[in-house]
Parts: sequence; structure tokens; C-alpha cells
Amino acid sequence: MLTIYGDPISGNCMKVRWVAELLGVPFEWRDVDVVEGEARTPAFLALNPAGKVPFVVLADGRSLSESNAIILHLADGSALVPTDAFERAVMLQWLFWEQYSHEPYVAVRRFQIRYLGKTPEELDPRLLERGEAAFALMERRLGESAFMACAAPTLADVSLLAYTRLAHEGGFDLAPFPRLRDWIARAEAALGVSA
Amino acid sequence: MLTIYGDPISGNCMKVRWVAELLGVPFEWRDVDVVEGEARTPAFLALNPAGKVPFVVLADGRSLSESNAIILHLADGSALVPTDAFERAVMLQWLFWEQYSHEPYVAVRRFQIRYLGKTPEELDPRLLERGEAAFALMERRLGESAFMACAAPTLADVSLLAYTRLAHEGGFDLAPFPRLRDWIARAEAALGVSA
Repeated sequence: MLTIYGDPISGNCMKVRWVAELLGVPFEWRDVDVVEGEARTPAFLALNPAGKVPFVVLADGRSLSESNAIILHLADGSALVPTDAFERAVMLQWLFWEQYSHEPYVAVRRFQIRYLGKTPEELDPRLLERGEAAFALMERRLGESAFMACAAPTLADVSLLAYTRLAHEGGFDLAPFPRLRDWIARAEAALGVSA
Repeated sequence: MLTIYGDPISGNCMKVRWVAELLGVPFEWRDVDVVEGEARTPAFLALNPAGKVPFVVLADGRSLSESNAIILHLADGSALVPTDAFERAVMLQWLFWEQYSHEPYVAVRRFQIRYLGKTPEELDPRLLERGEAAFALMERRLGESAFMACAAPTLADVSLLAYTRLAHEGGFDLAPFPRLRDWIARAEAALGVSA
């Protein structure tokens, strides 16, 4: 059976859980408390030298890290990955964009406020600026397409939903982004995400 | 024909050029000077709202951004992408890791030193620490495998080669990483990269 090492406070970990649940992949979940540093203990580093969650061990004992790589592997051949080569490329474009231009601002600001207890004055102002720039680009994209990669929900929506739906916990105001707010509700419904 | 918008000083852009050349994909290259802000002009933003290079326009007029998504699209079905599902997942793992845990330190430190003229005192010390941590993880991986994803060169090597081979320009010393130095030579030879 698939074993998922993750922390429920981490959107990156929830991506993996959602995809496994949505596709009916049986799994065992093992909690790794990120705030307590459990991803950096010698025991966990022996398992995953990158010292990060999510991390999965497949049924055959082989392992993978990086949330978007894990969900691509689990969802290979499913309806969450377009069969059209260009739509698949656009999905991948948004998956890489999420990790470079969205998560480092949107997820990091939430983590620093909610889990490290930082005050607004202690935060790097770029986290707000660049997070808002990421939402503006998504807002623009959602004027062209119902979901991020194409007309149907894909892994790009799984990945971007993870932290966009929690943006308020990072002090972001989504009021200026009406299409983005509609997409959050649409993607949550399509992907069966409620909590 | 494929049009590649890129800056030759950018490793991310060179990944796309290398793959097109290696696979014999005809292309037209259009220079976009990043240091001069040409990726942020209104004309370029109308083309690519993300304001980044590399950016490609395919023969049919559709476009893509994100270096690793572009090379995945160009190399689909080629020997640079493993046919084995698990090896493909490991390749994707390293592609996402490159954008999250390698490029933001290794490429950014080089850019700040070489193109923005920053002195060592002006640099965020995390760029050195985290860049070295990235090299240490690659060094460890190269003790298990001749190339990053598996025994043969893949897009993971293309992607990680781009900035690792230029690490000295970012003030990094690769002397403590002998397997990494050997891999640079091996990957350059396998991928036909010389300049």
C-alpha cells in the first residue's frame, strides 16, 4: 500500500492526500509535524534526505518526494491529466509556476503568520506583493478558461487550490479577484475538497 | 516553426535551446535582454503576461512558459524522457526540486554577483548556504546513479546542468563535490553542451 508522510497543515501534503482519495488509491497516512521539526530528524532524513514532506513510499518500497511530482505519478492515466499533449504541457506550466511563483509567497506568508506567529512588520514585504501578483495572473488566466489548464479540472487546479483556498490565513484579501474566488468554489466542488 | 524567446545569459533559456538542438527541432531564437528589463516591457507582457523568459510560441501559434514545462513538451516521446513510469516520476521529482531548491539559490546568487554587480556583503547569506545544500544533495544522489533520474541522461540532467555548470560564476566552490564535478563533464558530453 502507498504510505504518505505528511503534515495536515501543509497544502503541499494535502495535494497528495486529495489525489489519492479522489482516485481511490488506498493509502496509509503518517503524520510528520513540520513545526516541531520532525522532517529534519535523523530518522526522517535517513528516509528522505531532502528533509521535506510530502514524501511517499510506494507499495514496492520505492519512494518519491516533491508534491507535484508525486501527484503526477499517482494520477498518470487518470482524468486529472489531459490526454491532449498541449493541454498537458499547459498543466505542467502551471505546476512549475505554482512552485516558483505562487507557493514561495502565498504558502510562506501563511506559514510565517499562522505557525511562526510573525507580525506584519516582521514579514518580508515581497511576500505580499508577489503573492498578489500571483493571484492577479491566475485571475487573468481564469478569464480565458474555467480551470487553470483547460476546460476541465486537472492537477494544475489541485496544486494551485492547496494554498489559494487558505490565502486568508496568510493575510491575503481575495476581494479584488472575483474569478479566483469563483474558481476556488468550483475547484473544491470538482475535486471533492471540503476541509 | 518554433520561436524561442530567451536570453543567452539565462540557464533556464539555455535548457530550451539545448533540447531543441539535441532533438533537431528547428527554431528561431529571439533575444530578450533580461538585465535591460525587456521581459517586462508592455509589448512582451502582451505576449507573456508572466513577464519571464524562456517563452516559446509553437508552430500553431499557441504558447508556453516555464522552462521545465517547455522542455517536457519538446522532448515528449524522446530518449530524454524515461519510458518507465517510476523513472519518469523521479525525473519529474528532480525537475520540481530544481525550481524550488536549486535555481532560487544557485542561479539567483550568480545573477546578483555577475549581472547586478553585488558584493559578497550585499548578498543574502542563505543563497550560499542553500546552494551548497542543493549541491550536497546532488552529490549524494550521484553516488546512487550515473545521472540524476536514472542510468541514462534525462531532462533532469538538462535542467540541473544549466546552472550547476555555471556555479563558479555565483561564487560557489564545487571542490567538495567530486561526483558533481564528474557529472557536469559527463552530462555536458551526453547532451552536447559546450558553451
